[in-house]
This record gives sequence, C-alpha cells and structure tokens, in this order.
Amino acid sequence: MNRFHQTAKTQRRIFVSIMTARTNDMFPAEHLRNFAVQVFLHFGVPEPDAEKASEVLILSDLRGIDSHGVARLHTYFDMLSLGRINPKPNVKIIRERKSVCTVDGDNGLGLVVGPKTNEIAMDKAEQFGSGWVSVCNTNHYGIASYYSLEALKREMLGWSMTNSTKLVAPLWGAERMLGTNPISIAFPGKKNKPIVVDLATSAAAYGKIEIAKRKGKTIPRGWIINSDGDMTEQPEDMINGGALLPLGSERELGGHKGYCLSAMVDILTSVLSGANWGPFTPPFALRQEIPSRSVGKGIGHFFGAMQIEGFMDVDEFKQRIDEWIEVFRNTKPVKGQKAVLIPGDPEHEEEAIRRKEGIPLIQPVIDDLIDISKKTGIPFSL
Amino acid sequence: MNRFHQTAKTQRRIFVSIMTARTNDMFPAEHLRNFAVQVFLHFGVPEPDAEKASEVLILSDLRGIDSHGVARLHTYFDMLSLGRINPKPNVKIIRERKSVCTVDGDNGLGLVVGPKTNEIAMDKAEQFGSGWVSVCNTNHYGIASYYSLEALKREMLGWSMTNSTKLVAPLWGAERMLGTNPISIAFPGKKNKPIVVDLATSAAAYGKIEIAKRKGKTIPRGWIINSDGDMTEQPEDMINGGALLPLGSERELGGHKGYCLSAMVDILTSVLSGANWGPFTPPFALRQEIPSRSVGKGIGHFFGAMQIEGFMDVDEFKQRIDEWIEVFRNTKPVKGQKAVLIPGDPEHEEEAIRRKEGIPLIQPVIDDLIDISKKTGIPFSL
Repeated sequence: MNRFHQTAKTQRRIFVSIMTARTNDMFPAEHLRNFAVQVFLHFGVPEPDAEKASEVLILSDLRGIDSHGVARLHTYFDMLSLGRINPKPNVKIIRERKSVCTVDGDNGLGLVVGPKTNEIAMDKAEQFGSGWVSVCNTNHYGIASYYSLEALKREMLGWSMTNSTKLVAPLWGAERMLGTNPISIAFPGKKNKPIVVDLATSAAAYGKIEIAKRKGKTIPRGWIINSDGDMTEQPEDMINGGALLPLGSERELGGHKGYCLSAMVDILTSVLSGANWGPFTPPFALRQEIPSRSVGKGIGHFFGAMQIEGFMDVDEFKQRIDEWIEVFRNTKPVKGQKAVLIPGDPEHEEEAIRRKEGIPLIQPVIDDLIDISKKTGIPFSL
Repeated sequence: MNRFHQTAKTQRRIFVSIMTARTNDMFPAEHLRNFAVQVFLHFGVPEPDAEKASEVLILSDLRGIDSHGVARLHTYFDMLSLGRINPKPNVKIIRERKSVCTVDGDNGLGLVVGPKTNEIAMDKAEQFGSGWVSVCNTNHYGIASYYSLEALKREMLGWSMTNSTKLVAPLWGAERMLGTNPISIAFPGKKNKPIVVDLATSAAAYGKIEIAKRKGKTIPRGWIINSDGDMTEQPEDMINGGALLPLGSERELGGHKGYCLSAMVDILTSVLSGANWGPFTPPFALRQEIPSRSVGKGIGHFFGAMQIEGFMDVDEFKQRIDEWIEVFRNTKPVKGQKAVLIPGDPEHEEEAIRRKEGIPLIQPVIDDLIDISKKTGIPFSL
C-alpha cells in the first residue's frame, strides 16, 4: 500500500476517529491489533511477522502495561519510516552448541526477532531438556513476560531478559550507564492463573517520573539522582542529566543489588551475544541520544526454556504451584491492605477486564495512532 | 575418633588457644580449613566430602563474608551431633532429561550436596552445552558464589540459588514467609578478576539487625517491619515477631520486585525439586522455630551452568568483560565516592588481604570453635 494514497473512505474514517476520540476512549483489542498489523505490513514486514509483532504489542495493552503497547507504535513507525529497522530480517543462529546458541537478529523489530528466538530456545528445550539463546542485532522487544508466558503453552519454564537504552546509574555512579533491563519468568498453576515475575531492575519506571513532571508533583526519594549524583525529589532533575536509581535505591537499602541484577542482564543479553552493552546500547526512539561508540550490533536479549517434565511430573508441579499460591495469598496482611498479591495478579485482573471492555487509550496515544493513520492511509477507527 | 577422647597434647593446645584468643585474632585460612576437615571427619563424613565442605566454608571467610564461614561451624556441629544431617548421603539423580535433572541430596550437608550437584550441572553443560539441576532434601550450602566461581574454572557461566529459613515478608504481608533466598552468577575477565554477582533478595541481612540490637542502635527504615507489618527502626521488633523486608523495601521503591525475585528462587529451588518451600523450609539452627507443616524434603538449591563457548569464543567474551569492567569503573562517581565498584570487587580485595594476613575472627566465633574442640578433642590452635 502506498503510504500517500488515501481513499475517500479512509479519510472519512480518520475524520470520524478524530471526532469521536475522547480521553480514555475504549478500543477493542482486536481493532488495535488489526491496525498494528496493517502498519507493519505497510513497511513490508511479512504477514506472519506482522501478526506476531502485533500480538506482542496488544498483550501488553491487555495486561495493563500501557507503556509497552500501542503507545509505542509511533516509535516503531518512525524507526521503520527512516529505515533504521529491517522489516524483513534474516534471523539466524551464528554459533551453537546443543542446548545453547547465539542468534543474530539482522536488525529486525524486537517484536519479530524476540518471538522467533524464543521459539528457538523452546525447540532446543524440546530436544535437550533446556534451551538458551543470547541474541544480538535486535531492537526493543515489548514486554518481557510475553516470552515467559509463551513457554507455559509448551509446559516449559521460560526466562526472558533484554537490555535497553541507558537510563540507570550504577550504585555510586552519577551518570546513566545501564537500561532498566527487565527479567521475567513464569510458573503455571493447575487451577490458578500462572505466577508471572516481570520486573525492571530499576527502582522506578521512567514513565512515572514523566507523569510527576507533567503534574508538577515531586517524586519519592530513591527514584532518581540529579546530574551530580545527589538524590532528588524533583522530576525535572531526571530530564536535566539525572539518572534512575537501581532497585534498592541506595547502598543502605541494597542499591548495589539492583545494580548487580541490571549488570547480569546487560552481560547475558549483550556482552555474551555480541550486542551493544551498557551506555553504548542504541536508543529506542528518535529523540534519544545516540551513543558515542558502538561495541557490537543492536541491543541484546536472552531467552531460556526448561521442560518442567525434566524435573518433575508436570501435573504435580502445577499442584505444588497452586499450593504455593494459596499459602502466600493467606499471608497475614499488613494493616490497610486486604491481602498479599501473587506476582502477576494485577495483570491477570486487568486482562480479564480489558478483554471484555476494551483497552482505554489516553488522548496523546490516540493522536499518535491517528497521525500514523494519516501518514499511511491505514484506517484507524473504533 | 571418639569425641570424648582427648590426649594430653590436645588439651594443652586447647588451653593455649583459650589463653591466646583475643578479639579479632588472625587465623591462617589453612588452619581453619584443617580444623573444619577434622570436625566433619569426626562425624564420619567421607574425606573428600569433608575437604570440599571445608573449602566452601573457608572461601566464605576468605572473601570477607564472615557470617557464612567458620562462624557457622558450630551449627553444622550441632546438627551432625543430633543426627539431623546425614554425614554420608547418597546424592542421586531422581529424574532427568538430558540437560536438566532433579537431585535428591539424601539430607546431606549442603556443603557436600551443593558441590556434588553443581558438578552434575557442569558435567551436563560439558555434554549438552548447558546443565540445570534442582535439588531437594539438602541443607544450607554456604555462600552462593562458591558455586558460580567453580563454573569459571571450566569456562562456564554458573548460576546458583538456594532457599532458606523464613525471615522475609512478601510485600504487604505482616509475617515471615520466605528466606533471604540468594542468587549468584559470575562472569570471567581476561585481565580482570571476575564479575561476581551474589545477592540476598532481602533489603538487608539479618546479621545487621542483630549487630544493631547488640549496639543499642536504630536501623534504617526499610529493613524490617514489626509484627503488625509497620516499618520500624527498632531492631528488637524483628526479634519480637517482625520480618525482614524484600529488596526494594516498600511498594513505592519496588518492594514487590524483591518479593518476586525471592519467590522465583523459592520456586526454582524447592517447588520444582520437591523440597520444602516458603514458610515450611526447615531451620538451619537449633534455636529456630520448626515449621508446622512439611511440604517436601529438606531445603532446595538450583544450579545452572552454560558453556561460554556455545555462545562466543571464550577469549573474545573475556575481553568484552574486561572492556565492560573498565567502562563501568570509569563511570563519573557521585560526590564523596572514589569510584563505582564492579560486582565482586570488595570480596576480591578482602580475599587478597586475608590469603596473606589470615582470617580475623571475633571472640564469640573463637569461643564456638574452642567449644567444638573441647567436645570433640580436635585441637584448635593458631
């Protein structure tokens, strides 16, 4: 489809979209998914890849992780428009030894390279009991838990990690050196929904600082430092050369531990694969600073899969997970809290609601999608 | 050796020990190691196992992790004396699928079961590129990083995790449900000493609360809660039914993330292996509360090993790690700090000093060792 060709029908639809789009409009997941598919197809992404990439994006929206869903579609659009991402990557294993291998993502969309390499890890696990893949030359891959949840469909335990653009200071450092480098793993229950661990290794998400700044509010001590390395409660200090703190925030509360975890993710995903690591990780969005040096190709991911059956009867394991969930749910709660949550609870709840009621989008995201629609001629409608 | 038989020579040595033992006396590592070997042999632990167990203990002392070294020998002594730990375990694989397996530690010393099962993980990695072992029916295994450091000797990346007696509250819980559940992994440099990640998933170590209590000092907000679940700065609140907080401490600073990591360790080590998990993990020491229920056998460990060569040329990887280390060491430091540390730095420095100058022991630890000496007739001397 020519991006400058718009039919009268398309133009009418865009107009209707603009007229009806209010703050927190609800959009059916299926509509957003179809729109994303069309956008990827528009750039020549092969259909199965466009479908998969959209599935990853929309799962994020469904699970309430709004920052990683269609809110990012305009960034993918920008990168594809400028030819910075390869729409048709030749994802290939470049080194291998039975259960482990390194994959070159050929500068494809992380949303395409991620699912393909996660499949490689699972195929290896099918054959060897476990499979481990370090990936270079890739881009941002969406939510880490998409991949660990996929593993559950094959009765496996799946690990997923990625590095990302620098935002976080190592403990005792006064500059950005590491990404928010997330770790995810999931465990299936029999009667219960799975336990889903999915955490960035920073104390807080960058998005929270942006929101505070927009609202003119201060932020909790322990989220960021200013450009001198002093802890600050002013969100604008982050924008003016500050950095996020690692999980644990300061030495006394274990900030060195968050730094260690972030370093571990950086090394497994990127030093080991031949990708760019630490401060040299290329930016996700156009507005972000381009690193002064390149020490590898693209960013890096790391996937692992282990067959549950290799350790324990699958059914027995799921029953044990059910018991774990029930025992932890019945922990005596602190005053003012109803109950202890199980990792993944908030996302499971959100998904149940959003699959029924649709996905709420804020006006700036709607505007972004309409902008893509205008530029590509792909109809965006409710 | 009969534990009640003491030669005149032994008695003289003990006497000399008692007379010369001052606070922070320095003990050559070799002497402490030999003493530990004799203690384990005394209970019928086979010689290679006694040697290995002592090696694990002393490495902890050498690396400055005083809480996990000979300071714990009296606890192992107590458990062996009462027959609560099997001195001659038949450590065996009970389920297996190529690169993954479950091991039953036959209620052996964790210091014996740990090294044996870590070897199994590495042997599997030799054969399949990677190896992953979940272990049940075992006991406390010393420092987590002993195992990841062993993997480096075989050009592998080694993971090590263990669960432990309940001390930590899940986020929003007001009672102890999880251990301090550590995670370790190490990465080799070519010119530089390895990067060693070794962290408990709690905000602070229990030992720090004990020290504050002894000194009559308050502790930082974020380390513990009292029995109502309120954060407190009074160390005695921990003893009176309180709990440690997970890494991140509170919701606002990411306390849910520390809880997630601790849960991950608990499940991989113990739900997956058939060990006791969460609040049912049996105690390490006699003075600790015995859980109301058993949901498996002993405590659990989890080991992983991956051949570096399966991902990248080993030499190239080590050079990339060297570069990572140099770049991170040159991070602009915060005011008042000389430089950013690399994970493992403090322990490498301590080890270099202690290998030369000996291991400093505080009087209560010396008293414990002398007590063992008295009860077993094994000479303890400088």
